[in-house]
Amino acid sequence: MSPTAHTTHIPDTQSERDERHLAIQQVGVKRVRFPLTLKLGAQLQGSVGEWSLDVALPAEKKGTHMSRFVAWLEAGAEQALDAAALRERHLQMLQLLGAQAGRIEVAFTLFIKKRAPVSGIESRLDHQARWVVETDASGHTSTWQEVTVPVKSLCPCSKEISDYGAHNQRSLVTIRAELLQPLPFAEQVRFAEESASSELWPLLKRADEKWVTERAYENPRFVEDLVREVALRLNADARIGRYRVEVENFESIHAHSAFAVIER
Amino acid sequence: MSPTAHTTHIPDTQSERDERHLAIQQVGVKRVRFPLTLKLGAQLQGSVGEWSLDVALPAEKKGTHMSRFVAWLEAGAEQALDAAALRERHLQMLQLLGAQAGRIEVAFTLFIKKRAPVSGIESRLDHQARWVVETDASGHTSTWQEVTVPVKSLCPCSKEISDYGAHNQRSLVTIRAELLQPLPFAEQVRFAEESASSELWPLLKRADEKWVTERAYENPRFVEDLVREVALRLNADARIGRYRVEVENFESIHAHSAFAVIER
Amino acid sequence: MSPTAHTTHIPDTQSERDERHLAIQQVGVKRVRFPLTLKLGAQLQGSVGEWSLDVALPAEKKGTHMSRFVAWLEAGAEQALDAAALRERHLQMLQLLGAQAGRIEVAFTLFIKKRAPVSGIESRLDHQARWVVETDASGHTSTWQEVTVPVKSLCPCSKEISDYGAHNQRSLVTIRAELLQPLPFAEQVRFAEESASSELWPLLKRADEKWVTERAYENPRFVEDLVREVALRLNADARIGRYRVEVENFESIHAHSAFAVIER
Amino acid sequence: MSPTAHTTHIPDTQSERDERHLAIQQVGVKRVRFPLTLKLGAQLQGSVGEWSLDVALPAEKKGTHMSRFVAWLEAGAEQALDAAALRERHLQMLQLLGAQAGRIEVAFTLFIKKRAPVSGIESRLDHQARWVVETDASGHTSTWQEVTVPVKSLCPCSKEISDYGAHNQRSLVTIRAELLQPLPFAEQVRFAEESASSELWPLLKRADEKWVTERAYENPRFVEDLVREVALRLNADARIGRYRVEVENFESIHAHSAFAVIER
Repeated sequence: MSPTAHTTHIPDTQSERDERHLAIQQVGVKRVRFPLTLKLGAQLQGSVGEWSLDVALPAEKKGTHMSRFVAWLEAGAEQALDAAALRERHLQMLQLLGAQAGRIEVAFTLFIKKRAPVSGIESRLDHQARWVVETDASGHTSTWQEVTVPVKSLCPCSKEISDYGAHNQRSLVTIRAELLQPLPFAEQVRFAEESASSELWPLLKRADEKWVTERAYENPRFVEDLVREVALRLNADARIGRYRVEVENFESIHAHSAFAVIER
Repeated sequence: MSPTAHTTHIPDTQSERDERHLAIQQVGVKRVRFPLTLKLGAQLQGSVGEWSLDVALPAEKKGTHMSRFVAWLEAGAEQALDAAALRERHLQMLQLLGAQAGRIEVAFTLFIKKRAPVSGIESRLDHQARWVVETDASGHTSTWQEVTVPVKSLCPCSKEISDYGAHNQRSLVTIRAELLQPLPFAEQVRFAEESASSELWPLLKRADEKWVTERAYENPRFVEDLVREVALRLNADARIGRYRVEVENFESIHAHSAFAVIER
Repeated sequence: MSPTAHTTHIPDTQSERDERHLAIQQVGVKRVRFPLTLKLGAQLQGSVGEWSLDVALPAEKKGTHMSRFVAWLEAGAEQALDAAALRERHLQMLQLLGAQAGRIEVAFTLFIKKRAPVSGIESRLDHQARWVVETDASGHTSTWQEVTVPVKSLCPCSKEISDYGAHNQRSLVTIRAELLQPLPFAEQVRFAEESASSELWPLLKRADEKWVTERAYENPRFVEDLVREVALRLNADARIGRYRVEVENFESIHAHSAFAVIER
Repeated sequence: MSPTAHTTHIPDTQSERDERHLAIQQVGVKRVRFPLTLKLGAQLQGSVGEWSLDVALPAEKKGTHMSRFVAWLEAGAEQALDAAALRERHLQMLQLLGAQAGRIEVAFTLFIKKRAPVSGIESRLDHQARWVVETDASGHTSTWQEVTVPVKSLCPCSKEISDYGAHNQRSLVTIRAELLQPLPFAEQVRFAEESASSELWPLLKRADEKWVTERAYENPRFVEDLVREVALRLNADARIGRYRVEVENFESIHAHSAFAVIER
């Protein structure tokens, strides 16, 4: 690969003045995959992050410096992250880009070890998770932590009207919470699992399968019940500010989903 | 299929009273595929809609009647839709569900016939599109029309600094516009195409390919330029209220995207 | 748009001779969306096709003429298609491209009207479907028709070991069948529905929901049972040559799927 | 969580005899996410695997033991894997399931550090990768290693016919190779990068961008050229048995892709 030199004389088109008088709320990069080491309490867990990084651009500036977003990622490659550490890094990103306002979003998979309810056998359940840190034009910074929890829901109506059985299905509970104080993912996941007809495990022995089946039958939940049960738990937790809970039931009697959302 | 009779005595669990004192902002169905006939001016076009339908549920109500959403879809199966007709149907949905507030979102593919720039040969370019109609708690109804337009962007910096050539790539311009008056999709698409380095066609002869290549080289655009050019056009159109424009460049020198957003 | 003329003098790089002595099995276009009118018996149904079109390229040829694939699509834009008509069009595509061997694949959504089991109320269930027509190097042409059918499966083990209830879930049955004679989609779908714990409907009244719940409880099926039941039905049908059946259960007690495949 | 005891008396429905006389080629689990530690030469890299695991089931057996697949994953949770180690683990899976034939497929993201061509600045480029290990009914085991490499392609025709510029775009080169001997991912990736108009980097300074732009302009490649260049390199490497190469160009003058496939 031949060096071409004279880097300093290459024109810098992005730094020119723009005459259209239009500010841009978000400009940056997205769909950037980068290694991610999660700091889950005392434990480290390797994962892969998909990042979206942007800043606000004032009306008079022609462009942002896109390569600085990736340089910022590279600079932090060795650092394990939790929500608080990402907030610190977010402020460094704004400085590096010379921006007042900006936003980081990173989506990743995390695993939580669980014991099956009867056999006690251990397995790792995957969760899709996400952090968002954003600073608005007034300089206020918010940190959001999201996790999607797969659970089981069993239909109260189906149980009530049927002579035997009741339709049930996998549901996804997505809790996006503004963090006022740190909140371990394991606790955020429990808000969803405790609200469902039953929680899930990757590895179940037959005695566990019997337990899950009966447990769900004893705890029927409409999608409306499930979203309200989660909201009640979030309302009672002082670590959480604003939030959005969505429950989606992949109905086993239809080819579509039922869903419900509560936001605060 | 054997009838089981006594339908009238089947308990109606959803209609019971809820004691958790929590209103639900959105409850309904999603991922419902249903045939869709688009009314594009005088022309009808068959498509497939993916629908999300929901209503707000007051705190004292235990559940909504999910089957009514699908019944509402079936009742309108034969009707060709434009944004105005969907708004009418939205109000009928609220009535049928007995709801004050609610929301319809439908995503679909639409095709626009185009003539290649030199040969004049015709082909149909697909666009992903979307309508959203929502009525909030105060009774105000908004109608949004979205279209995603594939275009070509060529990098001004790459052109400026290179002895020959310039990197270019496919970009997607997504314009979500609140409609104050009807806006034909074909015009909404032009806002994006006129702002790009070049528009695209499915079918190009060699003379057309030469034209597109040279046209793009003559019209370099950063992602920031492209989003601003679209916003200028939207600002000048009295039919449009609020809007959100996002441009995503699938960079040909990177494996990630550059993007920019302007909202009003 | 300014014409540039002199089209005839533009060099035709693709038609040059290639010296690498490597034949290419497939070259063409993919992810092409184009309007599709389905001919389902006497009925026409509008849909959107996503097409993949390719031909084999001999070792001495530098390139194929990509624009001819799209021109071929445009030429057939007004024709309603079933599997037999697509086979005819496939042969025209080979001629137009001057190719011995080639392949068409088109994926689309189709709707089938159904009556709920007790109330008799009608609704349209969507199915993902696909045709593949391919001619191999020896000149043999095969036609494949695929449909994915959403059904309900109820676990025999969970029913047997539990004091009450049984876990159940949505399953997808995908039947790809080589057609020796025409096979209506509606019949192909029935192979899957008759093999499941219960079929699905988009619109169910409470009496229907009771029927589906009890029906599934009376007909428990492992993923292995379901795939074998479908294969038995395909084996008994002289219209079908080779086939592949895959059943995927979106397990309601796990966050992953169980699946099974039989091929002939 | 209350234990329910009497585990030993729970009936084992899956172990019963099946009377339909139909063997099942594949039965198992899919969409299982599980932590994955990659062994890339001397280096370890954390990632997330999405696994599909199955075995063949003889005609007389009613079902397989699904939980053993997940138990097998858990048993290997701490082991770093390369293709050879996965082949060993595959044989253990067949033993654990009591199966003659079976298959493992795992998809994951891996990162390769690269230096930009002029500035020498380092960044990590992500690649989607995959291993497949399968043992057929005759007891023969094959190991496949796949990687998808994002590159840049520049159209020779567009360059030839245009007075200035040439359309170019991101392309994906997917190389699935049967391994006769170990093949480092970094070398497999080079087969694609050396065949393209230019390779890609996540982080480029302006001098690098100039280099990439000019390099691509000097090395135009049709999709047919690119797939043949990769095949030539694979043909010359004794470590590789059968293979499949697919190149997909996300055309910047169209909204669809061009593609080409060579298989051996």
